[in-house]
Amino acid sequence: MISEIEVKTSGELDIINITPLVEEVVRRSGVAKGMVFLFLKSTTSALIINEDEEGLKSDLRETLETLIPRSRRYAHNRAWGEENAHSHLRSILLGNSLQIPLEGGRLMLGTWQSVFLVELDVRPRTRKIVVSIIPLE
Amino acid sequence: MISEIEVKTSGELDIINITPLVEEVVRRSGVAKGMVFLFLKSTTSALIINEDEEGLKSDLRETLETLIPRSRRYAHNRAWGEENAHSHLRSILLGNSLQIPLEGGRLMLGTWQSVFLVELDVRPRTRKIVVSIIPLE
Amino acid sequence: MISEIEVKTSGELDIINITPLVEEVVRRSGVAKGMVFLFLKSTTSALIINEDEEGLKSDLRETLETLIPRSRRYAHNRAWGEENAHSHLRSILLGNSLQIPLEGGRLMLGTWQSVFLVELDVRPRTRKIVVSIIPLE
Repeated sequence: MISEIEVKTSGELDIINITPLVEEVVRRSGVAKGMVFLFLKSTTSALIINEDEEGLKSDLRETLETLIPRSRRYAHNRAWGEENAHSHLRSILLGNSLQIPLEGGRLMLGTWQSVFLVELDVRPRTRKIVVSIIPLE
Repeated sequence: MISEIEVKTSGELDIINITPLVEEVVRRSGVAKGMVFLFLKSTTSALIINEDEEGLKSDLRETLETLIPRSRRYAHNRAWGEENAHSHLRSILLGNSLQIPLEGGRLMLGTWQSVFLVELDVRPRTRKIVVSIIPLE
Repeated sequence: MISEIEVKTSGELDIINITPLVEEVVRRSGVAKGMVFLFLKSTTSALIINEDEEGLKSDLRETLETLIPRSRRYAHNRAWGEENAHSHLRSILLGNSLQIPLEGGRLMLGTWQSVFLVELDVRPRTRKIVVSIIPLE
């Protein structure tokens, strides 16, 4: 089963827990056991799994700014009058897809694991995430 | 087939070659051809694929400390009296899942590729890795 | 269906759009709907998805040199007379596998998404990418 989730983000470095949205797709699929694959159709946002804690979200924002600063001179920005080269590079670093095993109709996440969409672009966007579920016996 | 591997780590930045453990699960499954998916139920460790060489492991430890230092002031640590914010951030950077194709009953790894569990937390832990195998014709 | 693509790279930091090669494998498979998995049998190159723009490629090269410099002293190089420790570390950072959903016989990529092989080693190489396609109803 392949379906699509849409998520509206509020702007740069919005970090949204999408676990309930993924669980809802799983529920509607009726699949009890298998693999769930998430694929983000975007080059300036990312999907990650970690703990849902505000301090940690703030640390992630600072870490991204340290590793790939917004203000550096980027060729992509000069060429296209863009200002989101850092968004692309951060997206490459974090990745745009995830896989989660499924058993008993539930995502097999660890106690502290949640699934997040990380907005990396410089303005609010509507993001499309393809959810594919492959059943297993 | 979905099963679980448990791995005990010795402490921070322990890097364990788990290829034989994954191969053992594959053998028991009896599946000759398909895809193997590994999912780590943790927010403070990671799964990677690379060469099993001690110098490189040491380089990886230094690189992680350079990119995301343990001693920086992190909001997650201040909020919760924790000292493992850097462990979470490093886990986000490296990722917690892998996929490997399977043919002739063997993982299709390159000559120099091994699968590693990287402990990123500040103390020894027991890690659970979900192994899902999807057969292919 | 499991098959293999071979790609020749021109040297360090060659970034090659392999989307047409993947699409060709999909076409030959005859599978209309499912998941496509790419697995690079290498420890010194990477697979990424992002925009095909020359400025951005140049920014990615600079970002990799900033995050994991070629000239740092690495234990892997000292131990083996190698000069590609940074190639291994960059490969770990970017990752060696991808997954893409498939519908109507086409990769479900976003408007700006292309699939790239990133050569990280210090000389031209021939890279092998395993392409596995799992059909879905």
